[in-house]
Amino acid sequence: MSMTSTNHDVVALAERLLACPSVTPATGAVFTALEAMLTPLGFTVDRFVAGEAPDGPVENLLAWRTTGAGPHFAFAGHLDVVPPGPGWTSDPFVPEIRGDLLYGRGAVDMKGSIAAFVAALADLPDDLPGTISLIITGDEEGPAVHGTLALMDRMAARDLRPDLCLVGEPTSSARLGDVVKIGRRGSVNMWIRVAGSQGHVAYPHLADNPIPRLVRILTTIEAEVLDEGTDWFQPSNIEITDLEVGNVAHNVIPGAATARISIRFNDQHTGASLIARIKEIAAVEGGTVEAKISGESFLTAPGAFSDLVRGAIRDVTGVETELSTTGGTSDARFLSRLCPVVEFGLNNATMHKLDEAVAVQDLRDLQRIYALVVERALG
Amino acid sequence: MSMTSTNHDVVALAERLLACPSVTPATGAVFTALEAMLTPLGFTVDRFVAGEAPDGPVENLLAWRTTGAGPHFAFAGHLDVVPPGPGWTSDPFVPEIRGDLLYGRGAVDMKGSIAAFVAALADLPDDLPGTISLIITGDEEGPAVHGTLALMDRMAARDLRPDLCLVGEPTSSARLGDVVKIGRRGSVNMWIRVAGSQGHVAYPHLADNPIPRLVRILTTIEAEVLDEGTDWFQPSNIEITDLEVGNVAHNVIPGAATARISIRFNDQHTGASLIARIKEIAAVEGGTVEAKISGESFLTAPGAFSDLVRGAIRDVTGVETELSTTGGTSDARFLSRLCPVVEFGLNNATMHKLDEAVAVQDLRDLQRIYALVVERALG
Ligand SMILES: [Zn+2]
Ligand SMILES: [Zn+2]
Repeated sequence: MSMTSTNHDVVALAERLLACPSVTPATGAVFTALEAMLTPLGFTVDRFVAGEAPDGPVENLLAWRTTGAGPHFAFAGHLDVVPPGPGWTSDPFVPEIRGDLLYGRGAVDMKGSIAAFVAALADLPDDLPGTISLIITGDEEGPAVHGTLALMDRMAARDLRPDLCLVGEPTSSARLGDVVKIGRRGSVNMWIRVAGSQGHVAYPHLADNPIPRLVRILTTIEAEVLDEGTDWFQPSNIEITDLEVGNVAHNVIPGAATARISIRFNDQHTGASLIARIKEIAAVEGGTVEAKISGESFLTAPGAFSDLVRGAIRDVTGVETELSTTGGTSDARFLSRLCPVVEFGLNNATMHKLDEAVAVQDLRDLQRIYALVVERALG
Repeated sequence: MSMTSTNHDVVALAERLLACPSVTPATGAVFTALEAMLTPLGFTVDRFVAGEAPDGPVENLLAWRTTGAGPHFAFAGHLDVVPPGPGWTSDPFVPEIRGDLLYGRGAVDMKGSIAAFVAALADLPDDLPGTISLIITGDEEGPAVHGTLALMDRMAARDLRPDLCLVGEPTSSARLGDVVKIGRRGSVNMWIRVAGSQGHVAYPHLADNPIPRLVRILTTIEAEVLDEGTDWFQPSNIEITDLEVGNVAHNVIPGAATARISIRFNDQHTGASLIARIKEIAAVEGGTVEAKISGESFLTAPGAFSDLVRGAIRDVTGVETELSTTGGTSDARFLSRLCPVVEFGLNNATMHKLDEAVAVQDLRDLQRIYALVVERALG
């Protein structure tokens, strides 16, 4: 194929995606635009809608191309964007180049990255053996219940099993390629409730105040050292994020008290192990715990895959890459169940902000890096 | 005077007061009824309204009668009642005798007691030297800002200074006269606020979570032993009555956290000394304190006055009286600034409850006890 026509110029591709308003959940036009880019490159495109209210419906796109026997390399990302908010210099959904920068909501998170990957595909040798796929959801910035998870079900049903997965989230910090993520911390929220017995403050012996018991539970939790961190992760951290009693009567001892905690945890723990530990602490004072795991932690141990990505970055930009596991969660938490996952994309300085913008040169460099990564992964 | 007409039959007097609906704040008819009982007994009656919204206006009644030089004995009480609520067997404002009991809202708290005192007045010898006064408010069950305090101002303006004061609150527990209160604990509420700096749970080093600091303050407060109690008071007690953060975002570290505490304290402390102590504890963690003193503690040391009341009880009923300082606050907290105060009244088993009722025999016995107390106090 080796097309170099302006049809696959990375800036033109990015502009086409940015011109489609796609505040989460993304639907319709932006998927049609991506489909129109992939079909000429020989990809089979499967667009489908998953889920129902309140967390759906969600539009998703799965695309794949197989050229003989070989490994399966997957690229994952999202076409939805966070709301632009007021105060932009130019229309957030009318891409505009000013100086060296291309402006538009999603420029770095992550339509620019998807454009770079599509442009890279056009640069690849025709005879590269193996399978290339794109796993693109319209709901990463929202509840993310019927997005990447539904795409993984779809792949399983089609017997598509990636061997490596690159997630195109904006991981770069000061310069393109300076940071690649090889893991993410997990996240779990818990609600700790202590029930007591209501009464009058003048007669405390006839009541059972739940607050001192909750305070003792929280004191134990604050003293809890989950771990000291690992070679690749900072220490797991517990934050108490809310307290609630809701007692308006000044002379009444309340009947129940609740605290909410949020734990960001590394690969020394699972959501389940942490819930068990907090339940154990709460039980000492008769407290009960409800929990919601937002995501498990994952780590793609540094090795062949991360070396490959670092080498491609070095060859294109000369930048030495730091491997990181910091920051919030991403859909890599789901994809890591399938195969080794590395996250690498554009500079995140303006993501989720006013006047989100990408350097045009970064788009071109990212295209070349992605092309090298795929070529070396399949080669 | 020595009237024994049915005009001053204690049950008839109680029924006349109970027949006037007077949910706090009491106004109008119930005061007119009391005034009509006192005027024939030679009392000067001064009815007045004090205060403005939100804690007023409040209707009050001050009555006094002076017969030559002698001590001033005051009786204090309230004509307002707490709302009856649904579910009464008979109309709460239509007094009804069933069996040995007289039913009606306020039967024991404390229209029955006021009726007993008025009936006692009719029994007194004509030539008893000294001054007798009644300090009756329409707002003891409510905010109590413009009730007894306004009556005390009114007395000061008229140069009326009691030497002894009997408060007719229902202090009896199992039998009439078994408990007399010679003091009350003080009460103060405090709001402890810790300010921090809001942030994202994934980046706790960029935030300052106020909750662990509040938890440490509350832990110190829980460990605080204010005192071990005294001969006449149980130990002062701190209850944490509310926690509030109000943070709905699961991934956000909140910017502030508040706790409310309620302290019931004995005469080893003042509201001010406790506020200073809690401020000291809170300051260690950067917390600030706002406070509202509901009342200071008071103690009328056991002695001549309490002995007089116990003697009258023993002579009428044979009951041995326990001197107590337990329970909530009463207007005695204000009156104790003027002179020694003792509280003694009917059985409190049904106060503030459905089907509030007083034993008819208790009304008659209380009338005789009150008459003996006044006679011995002035004699
Ligand atoms: Zn993103
Ligand atoms: Zn009362």
